[in-house]
Amino acid sequence: MGQNYKIVLQYEGTRYNGWQRQGRTENTIQGKIEAVLERMAGAPVEIHGSGRTDAGVHAMGQVANFYLPEGQTPELVKEYLNRYLPEDIRVLQAELALDRFHSRLNAVEKIYHYQIETGKKRDVFQRRIQYGLGKPLDIEAMREAAALLCGTHDYKSFCGNQKMKKSTVRTVKNIEIWQEKSLVTLMFVGNGFLQHMVRIMAGTLIEVGLGERLSRQMPYILASLDRQEAGFTAPAEGLCLMEVRY
Amino acid sequence: MGQNYKIVLQYEGTRYNGWQRQGRTENTIQGKIEAVLERMAGAPVEIHGSGRTDAGVHAMGQVANFYLPEGQTPELVKEYLNRYLPEDIRVLQAELALDRFHSRLNAVEKIYHYQIETGKKRDVFQRRIQYGLGKPLDIEAMREAAALLCGTHDYKSFCGNQKMKKSTVRTVKNIEIWQEKSLVTLMFVGNGFLQHMVRIMAGTLIEVGLGERLSRQMPYILASLDRQEAGFTAPAEGLCLMEVRY
Repeated sequence: MGQNYKIVLQYEGTRYNGWQRQGRTENTIQGKIEAVLERMAGAPVEIHGSGRTDAGVHAMGQVANFYLPEGQTPELVKEYLNRYLPEDIRVLQAELALDRFHSRLNAVEKIYHYQIETGKKRDVFQRRIQYGLGKPLDIEAMREAAALLCGTHDYKSFCGNQKMKKSTVRTVKNIEIWQEKSLVTLMFVGNGFLQHMVRIMAGTLIEVGLGERLSRQMPYILASLDRQEAGFTAPAEGLCLMEVRY
Repeated sequence: MGQNYKIVLQYEGTRYNGWQRQGRTENTIQGKIEAVLERMAGAPVEIHGSGRTDAGVHAMGQVANFYLPEGQTPELVKEYLNRYLPEDIRVLQAELALDRFHSRLNAVEKIYHYQIETGKKRDVFQRRIQYGLGKPLDIEAMREAAALLCGTHDYKSFCGNQKMKKSTVRTVKNIEIWQEKSLVTLMFVGNGFLQHMVRIMAGTLIEVGLGERLSRQMPYILASLDRQEAGFTAPAEGLCLMEVRY
């Protein structure tokens, strides 16, 4: 089985079809990393991410783990990956983990940021990681709605996968919203998120901020267990996985 | 002659052949802006930048001015430009200026930043605006050298245009150098800079930081008035025009 390595990754998701490998030839982040590790190890290596990120979603602190034969060190692994990975994927940290460590199963908390430019035009240097809404938002109304979305609930209304068979109960610990000049950031902290869940919550909160919905609707959206009741799926480009806690 | 407008601009220079228009079809920042203004005014408009930035160089605060017929307002000009300019060029500010205001002739001070990643790999979100050196730098030695490059001097050794006929005397008021984690930033403040001057100073200081040159060579490089004596021209991607003061 070899040694279990844990890595922390940064990536600009813009030109990828998301995290998850979809076959040998697909342009995914998992696929890119596995290809470099296979070259290093001389045999196929499977990596486990803390969760899938959608096409176009970014990461400042994605975590993954994988097993390599003896004879490597975290420093060598980090250096090798950073040398051969494309310039939009970067290993920030590599370390040896306990044999049983699994980046998805052992994750206890995840933090996402969703960035929205409310001004007419996005910052030219930040444009790839912001959603260009271009309209002002009522932050106070969004905060009221956000508070009503926190807690332990069945988040089926906020799940992009309508065929989801497993439990759709999750705990959202905290949603914070702040504005710096024309840039609005939503921070989501939870024990795990369903497919598209952060983006649907962001879209719903944006609709509240635009005055298209009232914050007091939130409990009804949750109770409906119906995706149609929630807001739109905010674009991938505004979303970034900031941190995974164990 | 119409009304004189002053605009402050941000751009990611990566995909442009620099600021200066080089004919109708060239891919330059000046050209892009003039094309939009011509559309707005219904007649050709010439804009004056505070200075040319090289191909690949960025700006957080480039300043330009131009004359438009009566009937526009700064708000309309800003909105129109931001609507039709590509997403890597953005107008931060537009205002009416005095008739005689000229963005280049009236500039009294310019501030540039040059960013260097000394770690093995650049931040994926910042990579387009950093030079990926990938080696550690001796910041103290660079500061010693930088102090010796400040003052009022003939900077001919740091001029990329060897056929320059006008004066090559300039005043560099201050060069500050700081490091945050593996990112080193050089800040240059001066009353004006010759062609490639900031990049040649950055390259020379990098060579000092790598131990390839001694800081005490700086006065001799200046005195030589010989481009061959100075260091390499650091890559355009690390350079950003931060501010122009009037």
